[in-house]
Amino acid sequence: MSADTTRNIRLVVAYDGTTFHGFAASDGVRTVLGELSAAVERVAGVPVELTGAGRTDAGVHAWGQVVSGRLPAEVEPGRLQHSLNRMCGPEIAVREASWADDGFDARFSATSRSYRYDVWNDPVPNPLLGRTTWHVRDPLDLDAMDAAAASFVGQHDFGSFCRRPKVREGEEPASLVRIVTAATWRRVAGPRLRFEISASSFCHQMVRSIVGTLVDVGRGRIAAASIEEIIAACDRERAGTVAPPTGLVLWEVGYSGTRWDAPPPS
Amino acid sequence: MSADTTRNIRLVVAYDGTTFHGFAASDGVRTVLGELSAAVERVAGVPVELTGAGRTDAGVHAWGQVVSGRLPAEVEPGRLQHSLNRMCGPEIAVREASWADDGFDARFSATSRSYRYDVWNDPVPNPLLGRTTWHVRDPLDLDAMDAAAASFVGQHDFGSFCRRPKVREGEEPASLVRIVTAATWRRVAGPRLRFEISASSFCHQMVRSIVGTLVDVGRGRIAAASIEEIIAACDRERAGTVAPPTGLVLWEVGYSGTRWDAPPPS
Repeated sequence: MSADTTRNIRLVVAYDGTTFHGFAASDGVRTVLGELSAAVERVAGVPVELTGAGRTDAGVHAWGQVVSGRLPAEVEPGRLQHSLNRMCGPEIAVREASWADDGFDARFSATSRSYRYDVWNDPVPNPLLGRTTWHVRDPLDLDAMDAAAASFVGQHDFGSFCRRPKVREGEEPASLVRIVTAATWRRVAGPRLRFEISASSFCHQMVRSIVGTLVDVGRGRIAAASIEEIIAACDRERAGTVAPPTGLVLWEVGYSGTRWDAPPPS
Repeated sequence: MSADTTRNIRLVVAYDGTTFHGFAASDGVRTVLGELSAAVERVAGVPVELTGAGRTDAGVHAWGQVVSGRLPAEVEPGRLQHSLNRMCGPEIAVREASWADDGFDARFSATSRSYRYDVWNDPVPNPLLGRTTWHVRDPLDLDAMDAAAASFVGQHDFGSFCRRPKVREGEEPASLVRIVTAATWRRVAGPRLRFEISASSFCHQMVRSIVGTLVDVGRGRIAAASIEEIIAACDRERAGTVAPPTGLVLWEVGYSGTRWDAPPPS
């Protein structure tokens, strides 16, 4: 297919990740991008290669995952969206579909990602929120968690909170330096607590490690004052538990105000 | 077992009804009361007969279902609750467990029931709320729905909104007269709308028929002004669609201020 017969699609995708083996396509297992790609290929009638802004793990959800890739120019975004929602529902929903500039790449054009993590903090679980919250029985000190969360804001090497990727021979180890722009805890209602964090990008398991560590602060197992030292240690052994995937949602991906929507064809 | 070696237990139970064939125990299918009874019998070590306040249909959820029945007096309610939550989670949770007066019956002592019904009113479905909302694409007129809901308040024969039970030979047909004490629609947040209704009791499919009819009002298919006439007709053909079970939650059961908790043993 020559470049001039294709255009660059931008999809905003929500999903319940409970039953998927993560976002990224992987042979032999059911993934969000695998399902979505298969449906897009059925509509487009050609093989497609889609890229997502964030590779969420098994069981992690999304409200504003962004996906891009080249499709035949004759595809109509509104009809594509409608077809995908019929084919991929109810676990996957395409919230938006539009043509983007040729330079737009869901992953590499992204300048910020925001995640939410919900905790159900009560002795008794909540079956109605079982798929989208982490049930924590121990009473949590929300103020201590919020105060400790502030320590993450700024530029840090997040080596204490990330799975360090394997280094290929002859390559430099990938940097785990990230810029966190906001990190707060608040009570949504009753025993439902919410952590919200934004950063330029995240490394693997970073949000879940931070949440697990902050919940350990809330339980009184880790002193809020020691968080800065744990960050500075760059040692994964120093952080707390990794929170389970259930409570995590990739909420929004930011593209720095750039207008990536292609102008309507003239 | 003689009566004096048993006591009357009162459980408050929440559940995600998605994968159950309804609440009431039924041979050969997985029901909420079936699962719960089996677990209680394992803890109590004897056969038990449990009664629930409301027989919710397949796919309907509960936050405050109430269950009662006689158990050996040596059972400790707090430990029972803990064991049941380990055995029946994550889809069923026992929120409270306590001894009640001998006269307490979860069903016949109840003086009011409250249900909630959530609608996701947007062209695009929400996968994160897929199990607990009804996805309605058509834009709904919330004010018209709320105004029409007020017509249900008061004492009415709900023959237009209920499945009429079979009449056994020689018996009078069961009355479908009910007293609705409150019925309102409001916006929870964004496209999430909530219907709340309370009544002395409800007949079969009454809430779902009322919701379906009010959503038809919101769509402009039924005039709000005609609701009173539809109620008066006592004719099931006159009501709107029956809303799907997904959005419905048995929220709370009221016992008229009576103190049903047994005093602590002296």
